[in-house]
Amino acid sequence: MINTLYLPELREMLADGDDVGLREFCVALHPGRTAEFMEGLSAQESWQVIRATDVMTRVEIFKFLEKEKQVEIIETGDPAELSSLIADMPPDDRVDLLNRVTPAVVEVMLPLVPEEERRDILRLSQHPEGTAGSVMTTDIATLSETMTVGEALQEIGRQAQGLETIYYIYIVDGENHLRGLVSARQLVTRLGKPDTKLAEFMERDLVTVEATDDQEQVAAKVADFDFLAIPVVDHEQHLVGIITHDDVIDVLREEAEEDAYHAAAVAPLQDSYLQTSLVELAWKRGFWLFTLFAAALLTAFALKNYESAIDQVTWLVFFIPLIMSSGGNTGGQSATLIIRALANNDITLADSRRVIIRELQTGLALGGALAILGYLVGLMLLDGPTAYELLVIPITLLVVVLFGAFCGATLPLLFRRLGVDEALMSTPFVTVLIDIGGIIIYMTVAMKMIGALSQLGE
Amino acid sequence: MINTLYLPELREMLADGDDVGLREFCVALHPGRTAEFMEGLSAQESWQVIRATDVMTRVEIFKFLEKEKQVEIIETGDPAELSSLIADMPPDDRVDLLNRVTPAVVEVMLPLVPEEERRDILRLSQHPEGTAGSVMTTDIATLSETMTVGEALQEIGRQAQGLETIYYIYIVDGENHLRGLVSARQLVTRLGKPDTKLAEFMERDLVTVEATDDQEQVAAKVADFDFLAIPVVDHEQHLVGIITHDDVIDVLREEAEEDAYHAAAVAPLQDSYLQTSLVELAWKRGFWLFTLFAAALLTAFALKNYESAIDQVTWLVFFIPLIMSSGGNTGGQSATLIIRALANNDITLADSRRVIIRELQTGLALGGALAILGYLVGLMLLDGPTAYELLVIPITLLVVVLFGAFCGATLPLLFRRLGVDEALMSTPFVTVLIDIGGIIIYMTVAMKMIGALSQLGE
Repeated sequence: MINTLYLPELREMLADGDDVGLREFCVALHPGRTAEFMEGLSAQESWQVIRATDVMTRVEIFKFLEKEKQVEIIETGDPAELSSLIADMPPDDRVDLLNRVTPAVVEVMLPLVPEEERRDILRLSQHPEGTAGSVMTTDIATLSETMTVGEALQEIGRQAQGLETIYYIYIVDGENHLRGLVSARQLVTRLGKPDTKLAEFMERDLVTVEATDDQEQVAAKVADFDFLAIPVVDHEQHLVGIITHDDVIDVLREEAEEDAYHAAAVAPLQDSYLQTSLVELAWKRGFWLFTLFAAALLTAFALKNYESAIDQVTWLVFFIPLIMSSGGNTGGQSATLIIRALANNDITLADSRRVIIRELQTGLALGGALAILGYLVGLMLLDGPTAYELLVIPITLLVVVLFGAFCGATLPLLFRRLGVDEALMSTPFVTVLIDIGGIIIYMTVAMKMIGALSQLGE
Repeated sequence: MINTLYLPELREMLADGDDVGLREFCVALHPGRTAEFMEGLSAQESWQVIRATDVMTRVEIFKFLEKEKQVEIIETGDPAELSSLIADMPPDDRVDLLNRVTPAVVEVMLPLVPEEERRDILRLSQHPEGTAGSVMTTDIATLSETMTVGEALQEIGRQAQGLETIYYIYIVDGENHLRGLVSARQLVTRLGKPDTKLAEFMERDLVTVEATDDQEQVAAKVADFDFLAIPVVDHEQHLVGIITHDDVIDVLREEAEEDAYHAAAVAPLQDSYLQTSLVELAWKRGFWLFTLFAAALLTAFALKNYESAIDQVTWLVFFIPLIMSSGGNTGGQSATLIIRALANNDITLADSRRVIIRELQTGLALGGALAILGYLVGLMLLDGPTAYELLVIPITLLVVVLFGAFCGATLPLLFRRLGVDEALMSTPFVTVLIDIGGIIIYMTVAMKMIGALSQLGE
């Protein structure tokens, strides 16, 4: 949804070279909103607009532009001019951006960025995607514990411009070991006693994470504790960065997005739907689609095995999709419940037995009810088979639903035990396994129950 | 995963009535961690532990206890003692809690809560679940624009204890109309000029939400703008509350959870998996399972319709599950992609035509590839049918995959157009529709292509 409210004016100002007007536009609103109003502009036009204002405001607005537009600006603009933008960006955002830009452009750009920033970029970009290190920022307000409240407020007032948050101030010793935390709230409530030393009231029991920790677990920690930020330390307790609440929100959204894609057997998209090329889209879906197709081929082989049974008792065929979908849906439900419960730490591997028993109990209730319904439908729909023969349907439904609940509960627990992310196990994957099992169960029950088929089972 | 590290000590202190020890335990750590160490204790024991400390710390720790334990404490404890806890809780948390407690207990408790807090509870509890009003807090730092930086800092230092955040300070006029925003960062950087009036630098262009707005959209707004909090106003621009970053994180987690459940056709759980009773679990799954079962019954009716075709050409049956799952998986992928893109505002209804064309193009590529594969497998697996007759399989696969992509893309757009939340449309629902369509397509193609069946089509 593109907001076109200011587009004509912006285009006019660009055409007229009205820098004063553009500068006013850039500072009049929240930078996020300014970026929103620029959505209809091309990358080149957007850059021309924000060039009119000072570097700080440029950085602020640039941050809120769409990711694809940011990349295009960097790739097509003047490197010398853009290097100052990059130098002033928050360290985590800028590494994220440079990872998306073609390497040739980065190579031209990097030497133009000031020494200190350049080293920071190289250090941060070493952290693999998905770790705490890859989302942390290195712009941190740090103070010494010997400082007083008054001195501390002066100092962070001076540093404030360049920092992502000044609301948590970390206390470090001379060797940058993390010693404690003082919140801006604590400082402000002590304004009346400006000579109080930070050591007297700083919090010493800090929840920290390591740069190699999984970003999802870090986000869960920040969310559980309602933190504004969490410090990232190395194994010697040196403070190497912080992860702020907005990064955590980004991680949570990204992970939710990924989980939704995995559950539907699509590899997560990097860009937005319309920005993703058809080739990439087909590829991200194709991989899983073919894997599932290969697995589903087994159903064809299984059914061919029972060719003579199907030949003799055609009505068995009518219920194949019904039985498979009942098992598959139950399994998908169980898998989702267990995957979510594992993700939320509501259950652990130690609860496996209890979880499986619960799922089997639920499966018994649901399968029993579906069995009764299925039997009634069978009696209504078919004249050929006897009431006894039709018992194949309820018995199979019950067993298949139980089987589905069992697989749905067991597979995520198994994946977790093997150290594989259970969220990667898509629901279609569970479903196709249950499909194959469902056919075997159905045909086995049928061979036992239906007189005409009993000699086939030999 | 229960942390049992301090349990023996805590139980011993409880048995000895060692209030000094308990008080020390309560203040030694971050309240979130203290609560973690108490996970193994019963509700009664937990309350006895936190009773040892002052009311402020009690509130802090209580907030981090599991929701079920909070409810049990309120329902089983001494109402007079608990009313002070409730009076000091953050307004949004306390309404959330009282909504979970049995009404009889609330009725006893409410008259014991101070007048002002009581009115606040009643006001907040009027907002329906899922709206901005239901997650906002009413503890807000507000100041007048005529104040100076020095006065403002003094004032928020005084108020800080009782407020959820002091980092955004809202400027209101005498009638509580929202006029602007000053951040603690702005105040701290102006420490050197304490006589500056807030009006001189406050931000006037504020992004606000209304109490009736959908919490999901509010969370997206805060996340997009990297806000620490967002003000909630009524239609006359009176400031009625704020929603802070931690509430936003809770909303995002809750919505992601709900979406995951919907996608698997489970009604979202209120409590954690192990805390949810089997009856409730069966009910939350049963409703959808029966709906899907009813829909899947149509596949049985459809297949019965083609009884004589199946009777004559048994090998058609082998490919029924494969064809259905290929269509269903494609449809599930498309539906998920479109639902996510709609949720992220990457596409709107205006893009419908483009989206459907893209999905059909992708479907053509994927369906074409699956068709070739399916044909080869058919040739290998079966001796009976001619190579021409076997063309039924690739043709059907291509059409069914296209049909799946079309349904998966169209249904979410249709739901959105009808004003129904498209995330409620579960993937299994799309799948079952495609299953039925798949059978009809398969049998229609077969009747046209296979000589022995052509007279049946009359």
